[in-house]
Amino acid sequence: MIKLKKAPCISAVSSVCGKKEFDGPLGDRFDMHSEDDTFGKDTFEAAEAEMQRRAFALALHKGGLREHDIGAIFAGDLMNQCTASSYGLLQYDVPYFGLFGACSTMAEALILSALCVDGGYYERCAALACSHNCTAQRQFRYPVEYGGQRTPTAQWTVTGAGCAIVGGTGAMRITGVLPGRTVDKKIKDANNMGVAMAPAAADTLLRYFKESGSSPSDFDIIITGDLGSEGHALTKDLCAFSGVSLGSNYLDFGMLMYDESQDVHAGGSGCGCSAIGLAAFLYDKFNSGKCREALFVGTGALMSPLVLFQGGSIPGIAHLLHFSSGE
Amino acid sequence: MIKLKKAPCISAVSSVCGKKEFDGPLGDRFDMHSEDDTFGKDTFEAAEAEMQRRAFALALHKGGLREHDIGAIFAGDLMNQCTASSYGLLQYDVPYFGLFGACSTMAEALILSALCVDGGYYERCAALACSHNCTAQRQFRYPVEYGGQRTPTAQWTVTGAGCAIVGGTGAMRITGVLPGRTVDKKIKDANNMGVAMAPAAADTLLRYFKESGSSPSDFDIIITGDLGSEGHALTKDLCAFSGVSLGSNYLDFGMLMYDESQDVHAGGSGCGCSAIGLAAFLYDKFNSGKCREALFVGTGALMSPLVLFQGGSIPGIAHLLHFSSGE
Repeated sequence: MIKLKKAPCISAVSSVCGKKEFDGPLGDRFDMHSEDDTFGKDTFEAAEAEMQRRAFALALHKGGLREHDIGAIFAGDLMNQCTASSYGLLQYDVPYFGLFGACSTMAEALILSALCVDGGYYERCAALACSHNCTAQRQFRYPVEYGGQRTPTAQWTVTGAGCAIVGGTGAMRITGVLPGRTVDKKIKDANNMGVAMAPAAADTLLRYFKESGSSPSDFDIIITGDLGSEGHALTKDLCAFSGVSLGSNYLDFGMLMYDESQDVHAGGSGCGCSAIGLAAFLYDKFNSGKCREALFVGTGALMSPLVLFQGGSIPGIAHLLHFSSGE
Repeated sequence: MIKLKKAPCISAVSSVCGKKEFDGPLGDRFDMHSEDDTFGKDTFEAAEAEMQRRAFALALHKGGLREHDIGAIFAGDLMNQCTASSYGLLQYDVPYFGLFGACSTMAEALILSALCVDGGYYERCAALACSHNCTAQRQFRYPVEYGGQRTPTAQWTVTGAGCAIVGGTGAMRITGVLPGRTVDKKIKDANNMGVAMAPAAADTLLRYFKESGSSPSDFDIIITGDLGSEGHALTKDLCAFSGVSLGSNYLDFGMLMYDESQDVHAGGSGCGCSAIGLAAFLYDKFNSGKCREALFVGTGALMSPLVLFQGGSIPGIAHLLHFSSGE
């Protein structure tokens, strides 16, 4: 783990989402949504890029900033060649670091932003991640028009883009980070990503508790990115096997995103899930004083459809950030 | 631009390549090659991952290091979901940051490694990038078996993987970095990547000269990643239009990789091009005392075949590092 000397603040956040997310339990907390998930664009790919653009523009606006106040952007998404980020943010003349951490991208972007601000290289950085249900379905599984039946363990890729400005003042400080290692337990089911990612989440959490000398009860909230109900349960089990009991303070953004009636099976997933969850749920908890210490574990399934066709498996990765309250 | 306080050294490099690169002008300087480009694997994707694994293992060996001496790996490639890196480096229990900077990935990885080491967060980081001609052709253009004719402006994706260990002692220091901005001049020809990337290269170079108060004659070598002859000429022109004359010290890794007889048209390209070029050519120049000051500009075309089909263009990006001699 890395303790951050200056513990930079998250000074502004933004969230943009689709109709299904707006209809979910967190719906009224998101900054902006599209009634038809197109954001006025002709293709889903262009819609996803537009979400990313709006998330950045909104975060600047909410933070009272202009593009040149941002030293660098760290961004990524699930589309091949991460085009939602590179095309979506094209209009901004800000140094750009493209990331690929699958669904862990928001945590990866936050860690690198935090290190750059803490190290004194930039005053402020922007961390962004997004995903779109329709671009992800046709790239990783089947186009939505195909109408394929989903298995009970399947998750629903969130249509959403979130941005966090690291640097400046705010109620939520980044006090420590622990980048993840790739973990491969030979899961090959593209419809059970939660279970593919859970071993990485447990690996990172257990390392963090050990290296920092802390325990789950030291945190008001411990939250994973998008494990869904399957991965959440497995992470609890894996930690329990190692003698660490994750209690009722252990949540998952994928499980908060939709309610039972929305029929998404195991929960939400995708880069956008933790990005908008962080902005709409966790940031709010710190701002309202309801949370003083939290761990956020961004989880990613480094899945390639081509490698799966060739007989390969789905490695997972999980990057951790420790947030503490205080300006 | 960012001046690095401690100016971390590159302490070890490695290069792994295919048959065509081995037969090229730099051939005998690469550490290892495969006679049939498969590296003993059943698929080209697995071969690319194996190259990345070997590059990391070799760099550790040449540096007298073990995996736990490396604080973090920064790596990426051109395959969808960057699988050559995540699968290739799976066996190593080292924190892993996945990057997508297209062909600029080696420079992006070096910049982030340098910032993390300079900031005191890690003692050593590894920067890696790779590409494979056959995985790139079938993903971005046509499978090689199709035998499509190549246009005169086309470049040849390098089969190669390179690794650089940042931190420790060595003859080549990273004294400054300048991350690139995305630049889109609406180029839509997937067979002329050099011209799509050149505006970004010129943008970064011109910014660097201005911000640092330096000029091209202050450097023994200025080298771009993979612009090839088309992009190299355009970069010279674009800089000249702004009153900056790049002289005969301005080279391009893509133009050094193959000779005329190898019929690659405009030159080499791909993440692996600058990664193995840096290891086999530039590192050598510093080690032998033939170069004391150099600029390396990693160039990337953020191209998506899907976005091109939808009528989009190819934005470019270029990340710069300033290397100086001295332990």
